[in-house]
Amino acid sequence: MTHDQRPIGVFDSGIGGLSVLKHLLHHLPHERFVYLGDTARVPYGNKSAETIKLYARQCAAFLQQHNVKLIVVACNTASALALDVLQRELDVPVLGVIEPASRAAAAGTANGHVGVIGTRATIASNSYARCIEASATSRVIVQSQPCPLFVPLVEEGWLDLPATRLIAAEYLRPLIANHIDTLVLGCTHYPLLMPMLEAMLPGVRLIDCGEWTARDACDILAQRDELAGPEAQSGMYFYVTDHTPLFTSLAQQFLGRPVNDPVRVSVDHLTDA
Amino acid sequence: MTHDQRPIGVFDSGIGGLSVLKHLLHHLPHERFVYLGDTARVPYGNKSAETIKLYARQCAAFLQQHNVKLIVVACNTASALALDVLQRELDVPVLGVIEPASRAAAAGTANGHVGVIGTRATIASNSYARCIEASATSRVIVQSQPCPLFVPLVEEGWLDLPATRLIAAEYLRPLIANHIDTLVLGCTHYPLLMPMLEAMLPGVRLIDCGEWTARDACDILAQRDELAGPEAQSGMYFYVTDHTPLFTSLAQQFLGRPVNDPVRVSVDHLTDA
Repeated sequence: MTHDQRPIGVFDSGIGGLSVLKHLLHHLPHERFVYLGDTARVPYGNKSAETIKLYARQCAAFLQQHNVKLIVVACNTASALALDVLQRELDVPVLGVIEPASRAAAAGTANGHVGVIGTRATIASNSYARCIEASATSRVIVQSQPCPLFVPLVEEGWLDLPATRLIAAEYLRPLIANHIDTLVLGCTHYPLLMPMLEAMLPGVRLIDCGEWTARDACDILAQRDELAGPEAQSGMYFYVTDHTPLFTSLAQQFLGRPVNDPVRVSVDHLTDA
Repeated sequence: MTHDQRPIGVFDSGIGGLSVLKHLLHHLPHERFVYLGDTARVPYGNKSAETIKLYARQCAAFLQQHNVKLIVVACNTASALALDVLQRELDVPVLGVIEPASRAAAAGTANGHVGVIGTRATIASNSYARCIEASATSRVIVQSQPCPLFVPLVEEGWLDLPATRLIAAEYLRPLIANHIDTLVLGCTHYPLLMPMLEAMLPGVRLIDCGEWTARDACDILAQRDELAGPEAQSGMYFYVTDHTPLFTSLAQQFLGRPVNDPVRVSVDHLTDA
C-alpha cells in the first residue's frame, strides 16, 4: 500500500458540490481535499453546453495547479456536458456524478421504472437516461423531469413548506404516474429535500449521487494504489470565485459540519487547461 | 432640435432588462437600442458587490464600443451596487432603475407606507429605502422584502399557479400587515407577475421600474438635445454573453414582441472600462 499524499480536487458551480464532498469525507477520511466553487458564475444549469465546458475546463485547470491525483466533478450539469472533454484532455482520472448514480439506479430498480430529476440543462442532455439504459442488464424505462425551482427553494431554506410540497407534487406527478420505484436525485442540491421526497414517495428508492460517486472515488484510488495512508494529514481547502453572502450558512447545511472561510480566487485568474 | 443618431445602450444580467427596454421602445420610438444580456453570468442577485461592480463595468465598456449616447442599467442589482461607479467613470450619462421608481413611489403614496420587493442583493443594499426616503417630501416608511423565488418562478412560466400564490402570500404578508399603499417591483422579472400581484393586493399601487426609467431616459436626452428625430433609423440590436436555451421564448414575454436572434459576445472578450 502506497501513501499518496496528493490531494483530491473537487469542483462545482457553487456550494451544491459540498453534498458530494460530505460523502467523500466519509468514505475517504485520510485524504486532503481541494474544493473549488464557481460562485461568481453559478448556476451552470441555465447556461449553454459551450459555456459550461469552458467553465469546467477552467475549474479543472485550477485544481491541477494543486497537483491533485483525482478530479471529482461534483456538479451534475458539468458532469453531463463537460466530463468527456475533461477526461480526454487531462492526465489525472476525472470522475463525474452521473455514471456512479446511474449504475446504482440500474442495479437497484426492481420494476424497471426509474425516474431522474435535475436542472434543465442536466435533463436536456439526456445523460442520465443514456447512462442508466447502458448500465442496465434488463429493460429499464427512464422518465426524466427538470425541476428548476428546487435549487432556489433549497437556497431559500424552504425544505419542507407547503409551497415546496405543492411544487414537488407538480414535478413528481408524471414520475408517480409512471410507477417509478427508483428516483435519481440528479442535482447536488436535492439531497436536502430528501426527507420531504421520502415522505411524498413511499416505497421509492432515492439515489443520492454523492454517496455513489464517493464509493467510486474510493475504488479508483484503491485500484491505482493512490490512497493516502492513515498517517496522512487529512483536511479540506475551500476556494470560491466569489464571496457570496450565503456561503457559510448554506455550506454548513450541505456538508453537515462547519466550514472554514473560503479563499477567493478571481475568475479573471482562471485560465483554460 | 438635433437628431442624434447614436444608439442608447441597455444592459442587464440577462433577459429581465427587456421589460425595461419594452418601456424605452414605447417612450422613445425613433431611437436605436443596443441591448447586452450577460446570460453567461446571470443572475447577479446572489453575487457579491465587488463581483457585480466588475461585471457592470465590463457590460458598460462593451456598450461604449457602440458609441452610445446614454447607458441604461436595466438591472436592479447592478443599479443598486454599481451605478455610482459607472456614473463616476463614464463620460456618457448612466441611468439606473432605482431612482426613477423611487421618486414615483415617494410621489405616489398617500399613507406614507411603501413596500419594496427585489432580489436578496438589491434589498440588502438598502438602495430603494434610502432613495425613496430621500425623494419624499413628507414622512415615508419603507418596508423591504427579498423575494428570491420570484425570478425562478417567472423563468419557469409559473406566473399565477397555486404554488406561486402561496409563495407570494408568504413574501407579501409583512407588507400587507404594514398597510402599504404602494409597492415597488424592484426586479425586472416581476412585471410578469403584475396580474397576480394586482389581484392579491387590491388598492395597492404597483410601480414598474421600467415605466419610470423610460420616462427619465426621455427627459435626459431631451434636456441634452440628443433625441433622434422621427426620420432616424430606429431598431434593436441584441447581444448576449451566452446562447441560453430559453432566451427566445422568455425574451418575447419580457419585451411583449418577437425578438431577433441575439449575437453572442464571449465573456472573455469583455474588458474593464
